[in-house]
Amino acid sequence: MNVIMDLCIVPLGVGVSVSKYVAACHQILHAAGLKTNLHAYGTNIEGEWDAVHAAVKQCHERIHEMGAPRITTTIKMGTRVDRDQSMHDKIDSVTEKLEKKTNENVDC
Amino acid sequence: MNVIMDLCIVPLGVGVSVSKYVAACHQILHAAGLKTNLHAYGTNIEGEWDAVHAAVKQCHERIHEMGAPRITTTIKMGTRVDRDQSMHDKIDSVTEKLEKKTNENVDC
Amino acid sequence: MNVIMDLCIVPLGVGVSVSKYVAACHQILHAAGLKTNLHAYGTNIEGEWDAVHAAVKQCHERIHEMGAPRITTTIKMGTRVDRDQSMHDKIDSVTEKLEKKTNENVDC
Amino acid sequence: MNVIMDLCIVPLGVGVSVSKYVAACHQILHAAGLKTNLHAYGTNIEGEWDAVHAAVKQCHERIHEMGAPRITTTIKMGTRVDRDQSMHDKIDSVTEKLEKKTNENVDC
Repeated sequence: MNVIMDLCIVPLGVGVSVSKYVAACHQILHAAGLKTNLHAYGTNIEGEWDAVHAAVKQCHERIHEMGAPRITTTIKMGTRVDRDQSMHDKIDSVTEKLEKKTNENVDC
Repeated sequence: MNVIMDLCIVPLGVGVSVSKYVAACHQILHAAGLKTNLHAYGTNIEGEWDAVHAAVKQCHERIHEMGAPRITTTIKMGTRVDRDQSMHDKIDSVTEKLEKKTNENVDC
Repeated sequence: MNVIMDLCIVPLGVGVSVSKYVAACHQILHAAGLKTNLHAYGTNIEGEWDAVHAAVKQCHERIHEMGAPRITTTIKMGTRVDRDQSMHDKIDSVTEKLEKKTNENVDC
Repeated sequence: MNVIMDLCIVPLGVGVSVSKYVAACHQILHAAGLKTNLHAYGTNIEGEWDAVHAAVKQCHERIHEMGAPRITTTIKMGTRVDRDQSMHDKIDSVTEKLEKKTNENVDC
C-alpha cells in the first residue's frame, strides 16, 4: 500500500529555530530512498507505507538524540485503492483545472 | 518509545456519513489493547510507537476493505524523552492551571 | 455558517511545558461563549464561523503577549450545509455504531 | 499580524476526485492577492491574518455552493513576533543547513 504523506515535525524545548532538525529529518528521508518535496510548512513524501512510517520513526528518534526533549508532529496522509496516484499527479490534476478555467475566462 | 496520538481518518467516495468507518477503526484500536478517547474530531490514542502505528495501518486496510476507494487521514502525535506523560496527565496539567487562575480571580 | 473545530496551539521558544498557554486560550474560548471540550491533544470548539475564528486570533495574540515569540497551530474544522450537527451528535453517531456492532456480536 | 498557513480543504459527499474544488479555492486565494504555493497535500499561503482567514471562509462558502454538502479542512499556521519570516525564508533556512551538512560530508 502506497501512501502520500505531508510531514511536519516540530521539536519543543529547543528554542524558536527548528530548521536544523528539519534538515536532519530530510536527510533521513533521502537516505531511505523516498521521494520528497520540501515546502514552507512541511515535507511531502511518497512511498510504500512501511518504508515511509519507518523513516518517520527514525526522524523522531534522531531529533530526540539531537537534544529535543519533546516533539509534536502533524501528518496528513492519503491512500487509495482505486488507482495509482503520485504527488505530481495530484498537483497536475489541480493545475489542469486552473488552466481550463483560465481558458474559459472564468474567474471567481 | 511511547506516543500520544490524535487520529482522524476520513474515507472519501463513500458519501457524507463516515461514522461506521470510524467505529470500525475504534474496534481495531480497542482490539490492539490501546488506550483511546473518542472526541468530536478524532480519537486520542496512547501506547508504544510500533503498536499504535500498526493499528493505524490496520485501520486504513480495513476501511479500504469496507469499500472506501480513498482515505485522507490527519494525525497529530507527540513523543517526549524527558519524562513519562499520559493523556490524562496532559489534560490534568491544563485543568490545574485553569483552577489556579479561577482561584486567583483572574479572567481573560 | 457553523463550524466544529479541533484546535491545537503550540507556542515555541518557551520550553517544553505549554499548559499555561493552553489554559489561557481555554479562558478566551470560554469568555467568547463557545462550546468547548478539552482533550489530550487539543480542544474541540463549536460555534458560528466568525466567532470561533475571532477567538482563535485572540488566542494567538494573547499567547504572544504572554511571551511566546513563535506559535504553530494545527486546526481541523468541518462545515456542513446538509443538516445541523453538534459535537455531541458526531460522537453519538459513532458510539451508536459501536453499540450496534457489539449487540450483533461482531468483532474486528 | 502575518501568518504562514498550510491549507488542505477536503469536500465530502462528492466522490473521490476533489481537484476542481481545490482549483476553485486556489482562484479565491489568488483573487485575494495572497502569496500561495500549491503542493501535493495542500497549499501554502502567506499574508495578513484577517485577509488569509477571510479567503479561507470564502473557500468553504464557494465549495458548498459548488455542491459539496460537507467539508473537512486541515490547517497548520504559524505566527511569530520575534522577526519577519516569509515562506521562502523558511525553506531557505532548511536548505542552507542541508548544503552545509553536505559540504561537511556529514550523512545521517
